[in-house]
Amino acid sequence: MTLLQETLQAILPQDQEWRDQAKNRLDQLTMPHWALGRLMDLAVDLAGMTRSMNPPVSRKAVVTMAGDHGVVAEGVSKFPSEVTPQMVGNFVNGGAGINALANQVGARVVVVDMGVAADLSAMAKSGKIIDRKIAFGTSNMAKGPAMTREQAVAAIEAGIDVARLLGGEIDLFGTGDMGIGNTTPSAAIVAAITGISVATVTGRGTGLDDAQLDHKVKVIEEALKVNQPDPHDGLDVLAKVGGFEIGGIAGLILGAAAQRKPVLIDGFISTAGALIASTIAPSCRDYLIASHRSVEQGHRIMHQHLQLEPLLDLNLRLGEGTGAALAMNLVEAACRILTEVATFEEAAVATADK
Amino acid sequence: MTLLQETLQAILPQDQEWRDQAKNRLDQLTMPHWALGRLMDLAVDLAGMTRSMNPPVSRKAVVTMAGDHGVVAEGVSKFPSEVTPQMVGNFVNGGAGINALANQVGARVVVVDMGVAADLSAMAKSGKIIDRKIAFGTSNMAKGPAMTREQAVAAIEAGIDVARLLGGEIDLFGTGDMGIGNTTPSAAIVAAITGISVATVTGRGTGLDDAQLDHKVKVIEEALKVNQPDPHDGLDVLAKVGGFEIGGIAGLILGAAAQRKPVLIDGFISTAGALIASTIAPSCRDYLIASHRSVEQGHRIMHQHLQLEPLLDLNLRLGEGTGAALAMNLVEAACRILTEVATFEEAAVATADK
Repeated sequence: MTLLQETLQAILPQDQEWRDQAKNRLDQLTMPHWALGRLMDLAVDLAGMTRSMNPPVSRKAVVTMAGDHGVVAEGVSKFPSEVTPQMVGNFVNGGAGINALANQVGARVVVVDMGVAADLSAMAKSGKIIDRKIAFGTSNMAKGPAMTREQAVAAIEAGIDVARLLGGEIDLFGTGDMGIGNTTPSAAIVAAITGISVATVTGRGTGLDDAQLDHKVKVIEEALKVNQPDPHDGLDVLAKVGGFEIGGIAGLILGAAAQRKPVLIDGFISTAGALIASTIAPSCRDYLIASHRSVEQGHRIMHQHLQLEPLLDLNLRLGEGTGAALAMNLVEAACRILTEVATFEEAAVATADK
Repeated sequence: MTLLQETLQAILPQDQEWRDQAKNRLDQLTMPHWALGRLMDLAVDLAGMTRSMNPPVSRKAVVTMAGDHGVVAEGVSKFPSEVTPQMVGNFVNGGAGINALANQVGARVVVVDMGVAADLSAMAKSGKIIDRKIAFGTSNMAKGPAMTREQAVAAIEAGIDVARLLGGEIDLFGTGDMGIGNTTPSAAIVAAITGISVATVTGRGTGLDDAQLDHKVKVIEEALKVNQPDPHDGLDVLAKVGGFEIGGIAGLILGAAAQRKPVLIDGFISTAGALIASTIAPSCRDYLIASHRSVEQGHRIMHQHLQLEPLLDLNLRLGEGTGAALAMNLVEAACRILTEVATFEEAAVATADK
């Protein structure tokens, strides 16, 4: 059995008994009923995911998957591909947005080279990044498939492998991405899987103007026409219009779900990875927490398709895992509500009139 | 000069030069322009409030002001007034929602008896709460003023005094409340100050049904008719249809603003306190951060009046300072973006095409 098959078999839905047990306690807390709203919904989910009334979430990592994209040759991004390895260096040196926000919540930042179009072997040898490079960037999806089906499987298995590697020391995962041009494959993925028009799901990425956005839409439409991805086959969608870091994110999600661990999904690119993962294994959705709603307009459509309601809405559009890091505080808060707040009986507080 | 007058004179607007300096650095960070959205807006505000490029926010306190309400005699709440002192005991024992959420972010919980209708002197003597009790609950505002103007001034000065007492050891304040029935005076305050109808601003509090909500609206309309508060005189509004803990919150806000310290406003009751404070000293708004939008329907109207956009929207309706505690993480995150993220020049990362 392959690593992917083995992982898919291990993914079970949330446990209803643990959900019920959590709900029963939360119903009795010293507050008006369910007065902490969505944090209490989240606490029920965490109990159902982890099979615990004290869900472990203190050991946290944001896994930032990096890769480059052949489609950048079509002029879909304001930044050149050389920024991808430069930003990997910035992550390693602690100077990026994700470093600051992971520090705030006490999370590790784990950087994985899934397919950066530059030689990062020195950083990998010194242990600063994990090397799972599939290739030096994808092929240009406007001309043919972004990668082979074998590469798509390898990307997902690399993500699963990273989740396993970290599993012994991490309770709560966050996804992250770095890859110049990667809103383009992400928009292609959501259009392919949901059938919603490219113009509706495509946004300005790092800051395109109207004419550049129009061009990006045409490039994505061309990629879908040339490749004809099968919307019911996540591996086919990933291979034809995806990216190596998107495959790595999908694998990380599947690997976390197989370990019954919650995984916070960051922004537009990470949620494209979640779409791929949920197309392959629908039950993995039970382990997803949508961290935020980004400025990128297709993000809302992704969340609707996944039936997830994001926790934060702060006009973020950075990626890297920054939204996931921010939302880790809310996951911790939800656990503390379940474990630290007294019931009416425990605290001898009078209840509401019935 | 009275403590109140002295405090009002010390409240200055945010400093534009420090705001500009922060904006200038944030413009150059290694990310697409302003890609961390509202956290970057918040970082500019924090620099303008604290006159610093490294705004101090690490020493945090949620100040939970407690008081009772004579209007509970009209049957406006599902819980009896005896729950107010019981919940104060719960705060002191660490078993309430605010304890769990303050623990998560590393904030102190400071409980102040502003006017609980029970003898809490034993807790005050042992140093577990601060005693600033104005009276054993307000008078019934449906029959006449909730308090005298002198008591209103005393409540606000007590809040200022608490801010001073804590000022040497606290950088970041959060407001909180406990008081059975206190959504009723809060709705009266927003109706009085904004002129919007009572039915529009009044919500279900701890869980009223339709008939109970209808009754609550009639009680508030009666209170406004009987008392005729002057919407331009915050002290008059507080005296006639307010509460002791709401006055304490207004004072805490004025005291924090006078110290140029940011103050996170919690939910519906805390924001009623902010309305009172901003009616007395409009510049204090420059130091307010709206932590969340609650389920209580008048909360949105309060934020519009104050021109504040809340950070979180999680269906909370608890009070106690719980939303303020949650949002403290976002304030810390905003500071870290300003201080820890490298600029393009520092990190030698290529910039976008112009």
